[in-house]
Amino acid sequence: MGQTVTEKILAAHLVEGELVKGQEIGIRIDQTLTQDATGTMAYLEFEAIGIPRVQTELSVCYVDHNLIQSDFRNADDHRFLQSVARKFGLYFSPPGNGISHQVHLERFGLPGKTLLGSDSHTPTGGGLGMLAMGAGGLDVAMAMAGKPFYLVMPKVYGIKLTGKLSPWVSARDVLLEVLRRLSVKGGVGYVMEYFGPGVAELSVTDRASITNFGAELGATSSVFPSDANTREFLASQGREEGFVELVADPDAEYDEVMEIDLGALEPLIACPSSPDNVVPVREVAGKPVAQVLVGSCSNSSLRDLMVVAKTLETREVSRDLSFEINPGSRQVLENLTAQGDMLTLVKAGARVHQAGCLGCIGMGQAPPTGAISLRTFPRNFPGRSGTKDDQVYLCSPEVAVAAAITGKITDPRELGEYPHFAMPQKYLPGDSRIEPPLSAGDGAAVEIVRGPNIAPFPAFKAPPADWQGEVLLKVEDNITTDHIMPAGARVLPLRSNVPAISEFVYEAVDVDFVKRARERGPGLVVGGDNYGQGSSREHAALAPRYLGVEVKLVKSFARIHKANLINFGIIPLTFADPADYDQLAQGEAVRIPGLCEQLAAGAEKLTLEAGSRQIPVRLEVSPRHREILLAGGLLNWASRQ
Amino acid sequence: MGQTVTEKILAAHLVEGELVKGQEIGIRIDQTLTQDATGTMAYLEFEAIGIPRVQTELSVCYVDHNLIQSDFRNADDHRFLQSVARKFGLYFSPPGNGISHQVHLERFGLPGKTLLGSDSHTPTGGGLGMLAMGAGGLDVAMAMAGKPFYLVMPKVYGIKLTGKLSPWVSARDVLLEVLRRLSVKGGVGYVMEYFGPGVAELSVTDRASITNFGAELGATSSVFPSDANTREFLASQGREEGFVELVADPDAEYDEVMEIDLGALEPLIACPSSPDNVVPVREVAGKPVAQVLVGSCSNSSLRDLMVVAKTLETREVSRDLSFEINPGSRQVLENLTAQGDMLTLVKAGARVHQAGCLGCIGMGQAPPTGAISLRTFPRNFPGRSGTKDDQVYLCSPEVAVAAAITGKITDPRELGEYPHFAMPQKYLPGDSRIEPPLSAGDGAAVEIVRGPNIAPFPAFKAPPADWQGEVLLKVEDNITTDHIMPAGARVLPLRSNVPAISEFVYEAVDVDFVKRARERGPGLVVGGDNYGQGSSREHAALAPRYLGVEVKLVKSFARIHKANLINFGIIPLTFADPADYDQLAQGEAVRIPGLCEQLAAGAEKLTLEAGSRQIPVRLEVSPRHREILLAGGLLNWASRQ
Repeated sequence: MGQTVTEKILAAHLVEGELVKGQEIGIRIDQTLTQDATGTMAYLEFEAIGIPRVQTELSVCYVDHNLIQSDFRNADDHRFLQSVARKFGLYFSPPGNGISHQVHLERFGLPGKTLLGSDSHTPTGGGLGMLAMGAGGLDVAMAMAGKPFYLVMPKVYGIKLTGKLSPWVSARDVLLEVLRRLSVKGGVGYVMEYFGPGVAELSVTDRASITNFGAELGATSSVFPSDANTREFLASQGREEGFVELVADPDAEYDEVMEIDLGALEPLIACPSSPDNVVPVREVAGKPVAQVLVGSCSNSSLRDLMVVAKTLETREVSRDLSFEINPGSRQVLENLTAQGDMLTLVKAGARVHQAGCLGCIGMGQAPPTGAISLRTFPRNFPGRSGTKDDQVYLCSPEVAVAAAITGKITDPRELGEYPHFAMPQKYLPGDSRIEPPLSAGDGAAVEIVRGPNIAPFPAFKAPPADWQGEVLLKVEDNITTDHIMPAGARVLPLRSNVPAISEFVYEAVDVDFVKRARERGPGLVVGGDNYGQGSSREHAALAPRYLGVEVKLVKSFARIHKANLINFGIIPLTFADPADYDQLAQGEAVRIPGLCEQLAAGAEKLTLEAGSRQIPVRLEVSPRHREILLAGGLLNWASRQ
Repeated sequence: MGQTVTEKILAAHLVEGELVKGQEIGIRIDQTLTQDATGTMAYLEFEAIGIPRVQTELSVCYVDHNLIQSDFRNADDHRFLQSVARKFGLYFSPPGNGISHQVHLERFGLPGKTLLGSDSHTPTGGGLGMLAMGAGGLDVAMAMAGKPFYLVMPKVYGIKLTGKLSPWVSARDVLLEVLRRLSVKGGVGYVMEYFGPGVAELSVTDRASITNFGAELGATSSVFPSDANTREFLASQGREEGFVELVADPDAEYDEVMEIDLGALEPLIACPSSPDNVVPVREVAGKPVAQVLVGSCSNSSLRDLMVVAKTLETREVSRDLSFEINPGSRQVLENLTAQGDMLTLVKAGARVHQAGCLGCIGMGQAPPTGAISLRTFPRNFPGRSGTKDDQVYLCSPEVAVAAAITGKITDPRELGEYPHFAMPQKYLPGDSRIEPPLSAGDGAAVEIVRGPNIAPFPAFKAPPADWQGEVLLKVEDNITTDHIMPAGARVLPLRSNVPAISEFVYEAVDVDFVKRARERGPGLVVGGDNYGQGSSREHAALAPRYLGVEVKLVKSFARIHKANLINFGIIPLTFADPADYDQLAQGEAVRIPGLCEQLAAGAEKLTLEAGSRQIPVRLEVSPRHREILLAGGLLNWASRQ
């Protein structure tokens, strides 16, 4: 049987398990990327592993999220990340140099490679024919340390493209159509793989817009073949030597297939407040618009900004709105400026910002109350813009510029002739600020620069042979990771500081918990069903562990939180008989005699002693997980390998 | 006796009083400007006056301060200001269009005119030979309503310039030299007026850098003559018809004179953390620099950014620092881009931001902890950058670019030959986003757009014929306006919302005050000596008045706060015998029989009754002030004129 592109890349990188759909596999990661909002913790974790230099073919440390610098924290993080990159052998892309995904596409991505990034839009690299996936910071740290990345072998959703896009319809509309058909959960468990004659009609940056925005399907990743267009793009970047052809075999089989006739697509738009709330633009045309933002990792390539500039050469921007350009990268900015398109944009009245994520992650650019904002961004979840009850629509650069001109939502086909323009044969590289890795010797001499808000990753001990502690807290069913570790403006700036962020653990449940855990720990938390549901944030395991929570005993766990508990060395036990939940009270002393022996022996049934009571409990984890728990967490385990 | 430029402009605009130094005069204001941080309140006040259209020759509403838009408030303010400008007949310069002072210089300023602006750096216009002064929002609102601006007739400090600046020495160094000699208090009570043969060696934008930065001397304003260079600048802006020659008479007399030989100046720098902490650059050369920011109303003209770009054409920027460009205006950005200099800056690695104030007012760009930031900004007060214990140095663009190249503080003369370049004969106007005033008819139809944080200016009643109330609060000596109305991040976003900001009145003194005033008012506050010292903020009078404080009775007032009390209709009484302070207790009922009659009659001695006690008090105000108090405040008084 023939293989899909997805299967070919996985097969070439498989280091553990078998390529059986639904089973866990371990794959080699060729490249990693981090951004600053998740990167600080990822590098604290990498540092804790204790390996002197990244083990990947290439790793890049980007700064693109926290560019506002309201106080010392952002700038301190930037300096920390630069020093980390220098010390550990990474490329460093500083603030203002561009969005990780766009810069990576331009300067580093290669067909056939695997890329793991601590950002959910990492699949952008799929536009180049690479298997590019988002993951947690610790997963990326492990990949940098040369460890496999473990994932459940995905199914492959084949999307057959035919035909050719009409004028004023662009890549963004392709994925809006997929979202319209499948919804934001339609891609869960799949890699979305594009094939068919329509693929040749899309440039690499068009494809990258599609694979990027595919993250909103909940997919593991999205991928395009590597073909003549891929070669052409790499050549225009002066990187043709990295080209390999990579297409699905003619007899490859997909788990699901849909077909999209590019020629039948019309301009689409996602209405508030979900990316899959998609309608044709004409259905919402005429609504007044207060803000038009062109940018983000989804749609800020040179092509995207050129179509906006060329459209504005003979037209004026409405004074009733704020028209803003967020270039994707310094390369985009440099070429746009050299070609004269920047002058067109400035003359037209654009607010042109430094290259970065900016308003897409709510770092500024919040729209006015109750007013419509049109954005070429990937997400319009309620309030994400910074304005409660916002009215954010997602659309292509073509739809965005049409609204900028008319002051209202407008089908761009009403503008008349589509602008003609050609992409450069050779891009100006725009890489003056990208700092290449230092040599191992020079790196070793670098001292990491830590501001007062950056704390080292805490060391955790392996569990004792016989464990004992106290029931530090007893909670009900359906506790979320938000209950365990809140987010928000107070807490997020502390993400690189475990001691400080730990002060907020369980704040929503019991304000005395932190004090009690410090005084009475180590200990155990008792919970009900579906414990740890919600966001995947790793701090919801890490911070309680820091406070002395070494065991959790619940009726049932949410899947991702259980994985995080194991990563940070918390023993995840369930009641053999859920009725025993009632047997335990907060403040009680409890014991697990012979814990380590039973962990090592693979025991699934253990006994928790509380006074004279014997409570049967279960430990359902893989042999690899048992090793991790015995080591006191994934970092300890990895540094002993 | 001949006249100075200052005296000529004052004489031409005098509407009340006589040109006797030290006496109060009223002058006609030709032009006004506001920025958004002070403008929202100024327009709420103007709206409250009830005049349908500004009465000046020209008024401009700029948005340049609050550009970050972390939530709805900034964007709502922008829309409010745009609608106000449309309604009341102002020009509107939207966010991203540039810093008020730079744009005003380019597009609106005219020699011989008076300009009043609600921003302390309004004297920038002095570079064009106008008398340009900063003032409070209500003063600007009154000027827009066609009322005179009252000031104490200033003395004139003549600064005689001779010689010619050496390569790598520029306008910034001239004022650094003045600050070095006179300190930040050296200009109090003066207009700084430049004359002598060296004046001809400075372009209008050089002169504007000097008059702008002159605000740091504490001066009323700074002014240059209007000469051939002025004509040339206006011609390059397509505004030559506004030129008039304006120079001091040969026999003009200055109250003080200093001489500066431009040719003897060397590159200077203001060290942390005061603009007058000035030393030659060579004395601090070699210190490592983490951030170089070129911009602000002081130094972001086309010339300033061109010298940076030209210097970088053959040189690279250090990777150890963040190098950032904040263009002064869209015009600067447009010309810089058209000339190719923008490409040079982008290639060199600059983070180029939208045109605006940005980090100069602590809106982003905070430097890392403990690191040195070099800025071409006017102020380096401690913590103003957003980073506590910051290390901010102030310098010329030449010194800034030298540090950007070497990564450390560097005397730019070490760079070798000074770049040769010519300014454009004709600037690209960069005015596509400046919205001209609507006609009176169209303006009348405009509806003001108010977000939920924008409250109308509260209406205040005239005092009753016989006043009675309660002693709502009794405080000690040396109460500051910070005690009365705190500032800071919690409170400042409420500046356009008097009801909301009033919730913080006297918070630092008595947390129950607001509740008590609401329940028991109207009333009186009893205070000690030096009541209302500190910041000049008008909310320290406005917000208590909103809560029902109608009289203040103290041992003595600080001067500016007393003026603010009168503006907002609070009767400022002092004890005839300070010992009577002890006679009054919080919660007591008090009366002033015949208050209005005595106000109108010019009585300086009044009687306050508390129970059976008769307490003699004094009211020391001018006849104009009495009219204002009888009207219930300046706005009521003005709207009845």
